Amino acid sequence: MLKVIAEDFIRPEQVKDVMPLYAELVRLTRQEPLCLAYDLFIDRKQPGHFIFIEEWPDQAALDIHCASEHFRRLVPMIDACQAQPGTYILMDQAF
Amino acid sequence: MLKVIAEDFIRPEQVKDVMPLYAELVRLTRQEPLCLAYDLFIDRKQPGHFIFIEEWPDQAALDIHCASEHFRRLVPMIDACQAQPGTYILMDQAF
Repeated sequence: MLKVIAEDFIRPEQVKDVMPLYAELVRLTRQEPLCLAYDLFIDRKQPGHFIFIEEWPDQAALDIHCASEHFRRLVPMIDACQAQPGTYILMDQAF
Repeated sequence: MLKVIAEDFIRPEQVKDVMPLYAELVRLTRQEPLCLAYDLFIDRKQPGHFIFIEEWPDQAALDIHCASEHFRRLVPMIDACQAQPGTYILMDQAF
């Protein structure tokens, strides 16, 4: 199992623009057959700070997600609203 | 619902020392009546980078956790092995 945290830092004045893009990305990603979990959260202290918490069976499933039509179409539109580059962590469960 | 990401940065040579402390912290926290989820992950690229993903009903439940005997006993022992201060994010689900 592969757990992922992916963080985006959106310019505050563009949060309203990315919300429908995020909504579509979450909806379509959850329909991927290999997606185990794909949830988006908002930092309480920094409204432009968005955090995905994802779960995939393995790296191959994540690669398929990143090559999907919806990812390749929506993520560049979201990234155009970034205040700074996003980050991600790939993780294994400790216990 | 309150989602939490808490990150620790442990000195690599002390990872072996913190593992039993983390194991006890996870085991006892999951027994707290208000704990909805408490999972610990390890960064694949940085073995001393530990990431908790937590879920609590609200801030009051998190405060009870942080005041618990196991938290107050174990966290300072873990923190003594840190390479740099830990961070945390308090989050709301977007959708």
